[in-house]
Amino acid sequence: MQKVAVIMGSKSDLPVMQDAIDILKEFKIDVEVDIVSAHRTPEKLFDFSKNAHTSGINVIIAGAGGAAHLPGMVASLSPLPVIGVPVKSSNSIDGWDSVLSILQMPGGVPVATVALNGAKNAGILAAQIIGATDKTIQNTIIAYKESLKAKVIESSKELK
Amino acid sequence: MQKVAVIMGSKSDLPVMQDAIDILKEFKIDVEVDIVSAHRTPEKLFDFSKNAHTSGINVIIAGAGGAAHLPGMVASLSPLPVIGVPVKSSNSIDGWDSVLSILQMPGGVPVATVALNGAKNAGILAAQIIGATDKTIQNTIIAYKESLKAKVIESSKELK
Amino acid sequence: MQKVAVIMGSKSDLPVMQDAIDILKEFKIDVEVDIVSAHRTPEKLFDFSKNAHTSGINVIIAGAGGAAHLPGMVASLSPLPVIGVPVKSSNSIDGWDSVLSILQMPGGVPVATVALNGAKNAGILAAQIIGATDKTIQNTIIAYKESLKAKVIESSKELK
Amino acid sequence: MQKVAVIMGSKSDLPVMQDAIDILKEFKIDVEVDIVSAHRTPEKLFDFSKNAHTSGINVIIAGAGGAAHLPGMVASLSPLPVIGVPVKSSNSIDGWDSVLSILQMPGGVPVATVALNGAKNAGILAAQIIGATDKTIQNTIIAYKESLKAKVIESSKELK
Amino acid sequence: MQKVAVIMGSKSDLPVMQDAIDILKEFKIDVEVDIVSAHRTPEKLFDFSKNAHTSGINVIIAGAGGAAHLPGMVASLSPLPVIGVPVKSSNSIDGWDSVLSILQMPGGVPVATVALNGAKNAGILAAQIIGATDKTIQNTIIAYKESLKAKVIESSKELK
Amino acid sequence: MQKVAVIMGSKSDLPVMQDAIDILKEFKIDVEVDIVSAHRTPEKLFDFSKNAHTSGINVIIAGAGGAAHLPGMVASLSPLPVIGVPVKSSNSIDGWDSVLSILQMPGGVPVATVALNGAKNAGILAAQIIGATDKTIQNTIIAYKESLKAKVIESSKELK
Amino acid sequence: MQKVAVIMGSKSDLPVMQDAIDILKEFKIDVEVDIVSAHRTPEKLFDFSKNAHTSGINVIIAGAGGAAHLPGMVASLSPLPVIGVPVKSSNSIDGWDSVLSILQMPGGVPVATVALNGAKNAGILAAQIIGATDKTIQNTIIAYKESLKAKVIESSKELK
Amino acid sequence: MQKVAVIMGSKSDLPVMQDAIDILKEFKIDVEVDIVSAHRTPEKLFDFSKNAHTSGINVIIAGAGGAAHLPGMVASLSPLPVIGVPVKSSNSIDGWDSVLSILQMPGGVPVATVALNGAKNAGILAAQIIGATDKTIQNTIIAYKESLKAKVIESSKELK
Repeated sequence: MQKVAVIMGSKSDLPVMQDAIDILKEFKIDVEVDIVSAHRTPEKLFDFSKNAHTSGINVIIAGAGGAAHLPGMVASLSPLPVIGVPVKSSNSIDGWDSVLSILQMPGGVPVATVALNGAKNAGILAAQIIGATDKTIQNTIIAYKESLKAKVIESSKELK
Repeated sequence: MQKVAVIMGSKSDLPVMQDAIDILKEFKIDVEVDIVSAHRTPEKLFDFSKNAHTSGINVIIAGAGGAAHLPGMVASLSPLPVIGVPVKSSNSIDGWDSVLSILQMPGGVPVATVALNGAKNAGILAAQIIGATDKTIQNTIIAYKESLKAKVIESSKELK
Repeated sequence: MQKVAVIMGSKSDLPVMQDAIDILKEFKIDVEVDIVSAHRTPEKLFDFSKNAHTSGINVIIAGAGGAAHLPGMVASLSPLPVIGVPVKSSNSIDGWDSVLSILQMPGGVPVATVALNGAKNAGILAAQIIGATDKTIQNTIIAYKESLKAKVIESSKELK
Repeated sequence: MQKVAVIMGSKSDLPVMQDAIDILKEFKIDVEVDIVSAHRTPEKLFDFSKNAHTSGINVIIAGAGGAAHLPGMVASLSPLPVIGVPVKSSNSIDGWDSVLSILQMPGGVPVATVALNGAKNAGILAAQIIGATDKTIQNTIIAYKESLKAKVIESSKELK
Repeated sequence: MQKVAVIMGSKSDLPVMQDAIDILKEFKIDVEVDIVSAHRTPEKLFDFSKNAHTSGINVIIAGAGGAAHLPGMVASLSPLPVIGVPVKSSNSIDGWDSVLSILQMPGGVPVATVALNGAKNAGILAAQIIGATDKTIQNTIIAYKESLKAKVIESSKELK
Repeated sequence: MQKVAVIMGSKSDLPVMQDAIDILKEFKIDVEVDIVSAHRTPEKLFDFSKNAHTSGINVIIAGAGGAAHLPGMVASLSPLPVIGVPVKSSNSIDGWDSVLSILQMPGGVPVATVALNGAKNAGILAAQIIGATDKTIQNTIIAYKESLKAKVIESSKELK
Repeated sequence: MQKVAVIMGSKSDLPVMQDAIDILKEFKIDVEVDIVSAHRTPEKLFDFSKNAHTSGINVIIAGAGGAAHLPGMVASLSPLPVIGVPVKSSNSIDGWDSVLSILQMPGGVPVATVALNGAKNAGILAAQIIGATDKTIQNTIIAYKESLKAKVIESSKELK
Repeated sequence: MQKVAVIMGSKSDLPVMQDAIDILKEFKIDVEVDIVSAHRTPEKLFDFSKNAHTSGINVIIAGAGGAAHLPGMVASLSPLPVIGVPVKSSNSIDGWDSVLSILQMPGGVPVATVALNGAKNAGILAAQIIGATDKTIQNTIIAYKESLKAKVIESSKELK
């Protein structure tokens, strides 16, 4: 079975990152959660990132705020696809700092960046990545998209 | 064999998007290239996006500039992972328009966004996505990362 | 009789978009309201946009937030004038995302963009568009402008 | 016959604004061109704006750079729909000044804003506004959109 | 005796603009206050601006928010020095719109711009302008600066 | 006779600041020019600013780039009106640094800020400040404004 | 014994700047605190800055908001290393003004800038500067970093 | 003797970073130069940062562009003061990415950030840090500041 790791730079990122965990559980995808700080636990960052691909993890989701180096540093150390979630932390300059610190990676080391505080989309994207070669998960995604559509149709009816 | 589609909104995006094509070829991954404009060929956008996952494509890379709707609209219509490349087009407001139009997708419909003009990273990310469940490609990524390291070590020696 | 369609990407946009509906009703212009999500109901977007000009609609107002693709995609599919309202949604990066996603359309496919959350102005603009060839509506606009002036004169008096 | 006025704040805006004139001529729509500076010829601005709707003009396109007050001031004085073109002038702060000066009009006085230097789209939008109630022009727009599509299809073929 | 006019685009700007009125009164400078909207009362704007310099006014302070055209249009019509106060209105894009609409005036028509919501400084600047040729007012400014200094020295003492 | 001091932080600002000198000479206003660096010659900054108002200067124009502290520091030390010119220097972040460093002065110490590189407008504003109480200079301003108008009328004729 | 001066432009900066004082006390480093306003007490700024290096101070921390000239002016007058703390004051434009006013110093006069409201980091940096040549303080820093790590490990355990 | 390490993320940063090397050599301070990429040579980053303070280095200058993680990661691993130089690389979004990635470090891990491309100031700051406890270097800084002053006085004379 495939597994997604959801890591974050600080416990204060959990309320945002919970959305990724929830949607993955809803999709019946195995999730492993941890706090790994690029700046306060760099050795743990190294250990985690170097070993993720040989310990059953297929996709890594990393969330961080401010000068957010966690997603990029994990991407530097792991061959796995890394999804970065810019978190709008307190004292952030409107979120621009985390967005740009995660998005603007140099050639050779990509991070798949999602919207500011977009942890839910990070979870869906992780599922889509697994679904790229796993038709069961792909069908889960197709069904999920149908459910989104149904909700809009419903609210359209309510409006009228 | 797995396949990546590289599409772009306009022929003028090709010089940027070529980097994605080149790195995928270097990685021996099958690539399909096309021009699909969200605003000028919306029907083609629909056809392409609705059918990509049943026509052998595993990952879609979509590049566009300005109010860049191509990646997001493909993501709305396809269950596949979609990688968005913000292209800095002429008359762009410093690239902010394409970055934000691609990155800030609403909950439910993620686009894996890479850096401004970061088509090379889009290609590498597509390979990593395939490599998430394909050890051969994952090893290619590992080797590629080693080659990046070697080049830095080399230039470090030259400097000294 | 002429008609304006007011559509929005999500029910959560209604508090903002209601201003457009209200001013059009005040101007005695026929309004049709619906929720059409570019990203969650792309087929409905297609149907609506392809058929609007043959179903009695003269002007389309479309509001959306974040990576706001609704106005631009409607404009891509309909020959009618499309007015875009950037909505400042939660998790928006200060509204810049919706503003730039709507404003910076490529050559060939314009969207008439109004201010952030400027749904009232979208309604007035729709009336002005109809008034461009309909002297009755144009006179309504002239009278409305007089009423704005009167209110300023009134508050000037109160101040003194 | 319907007519569009294309005005600009300075002769130096003409290279940008010519795109609006050209596309309107291509669409066989009558165009009137003039230089009207909000800041250097305010009386002319008043005269032009007060009288445009009674002198055969149906739509006004106004282009200006920097602290671009021309479109908004025309909209304040005329009941006609006013399309604003933000021009990226020298010493502009990356175009943000003209974009925000034109877009962020207060409630009651809309300006239909197009992209930075987007004069071509201003011309198309003016045609769409006329076409909102004139089926001949609407058909011209439909044909124009088909021609855009054909060009993309063509460049797609060339690519393959 | 010299006089400063304090005008604003809307009654809602009064809480901000009151600071200018208060400091001018503190400096014993004659103040005239009015609401003049560039977009809703353009004729009043014209009358006021054309006649200010012949009706005893020496300096004009104009405050406005959003696409703030009032200060620039007054400056276009009056030979007097015009001080512009960017007001951070609701639906403003973080105040950037009013700042840039007031600051970035084209060559030939300056507006003396102060900080966002900086009405107090506008009042002080008006006094300095009068004080440029009036030693009594200049001495008032010198005394005011001494009082600022004294307050800092006082709070420095409290801290220690 | 009245006098304007034009100072700048570095000789490299002279090409921009020359516009202020030229227009003041055209207006027959006495100009004194010097290089005063807030960061490299702070003592000269003190001497100049403390003594300007007692050495025949009526208005100070100060231009600087980057973290531009010159205008604000002069304003802190002199009771005269200080006009700040944000200069777009090399390595500037698009001019935002000098604009914000000059504009956003705290309550009590205003700087009359003009547009980025707007030295010409600084010169005109200095003349308007003198003209606030000097009818001869005010008439020069009125005549200058007429000349601006005449040039626009001329270029309007050429266009037609 | 070594000493750090913590100065700020206004008493209202104290809640932010207290973090610097607290961490320095925690590190057993001597701290001297004062209010020194570049704009309201320029003479005190001069005296303080000119004499700091001969009165037992080794590092200066200066915090200020808006057009924040205090850190740069101190750096201009003192040979000591100056750490600048951009404070997000009321009426700030999202903190950009203080960040850019402190960061973008011209060649020759550096300010060591920390994050918006980052007074705690300013204190740590001051300790690191002293620790650059003082092994006791360096060991305090090493121990502090270990304590940060321990807290993350702790919260990681709590999460699991 | 004291030593400063100057490291950079890529050989392409050398033209910018050379300014730091040059000024340190001018100040007769020992310099060690290397290329250390956070993203391409993370192990080297670890080795370098962990050992710098025990191998004779007193201050580290680290320059990088885009999502610039090098300075922050070095600061996470070393107890030494780290000076970060944001480099404006190609495909940067106007330098904002490197500025924010370096400046906005979380509480606990400061980076002393200098201006965009401000390597010269990084060198001077390193010297000031050493000079904080070394009177010889402090005197070098004092002399350097005098030389800056002399150059301004010289160019002031030339202007007159």
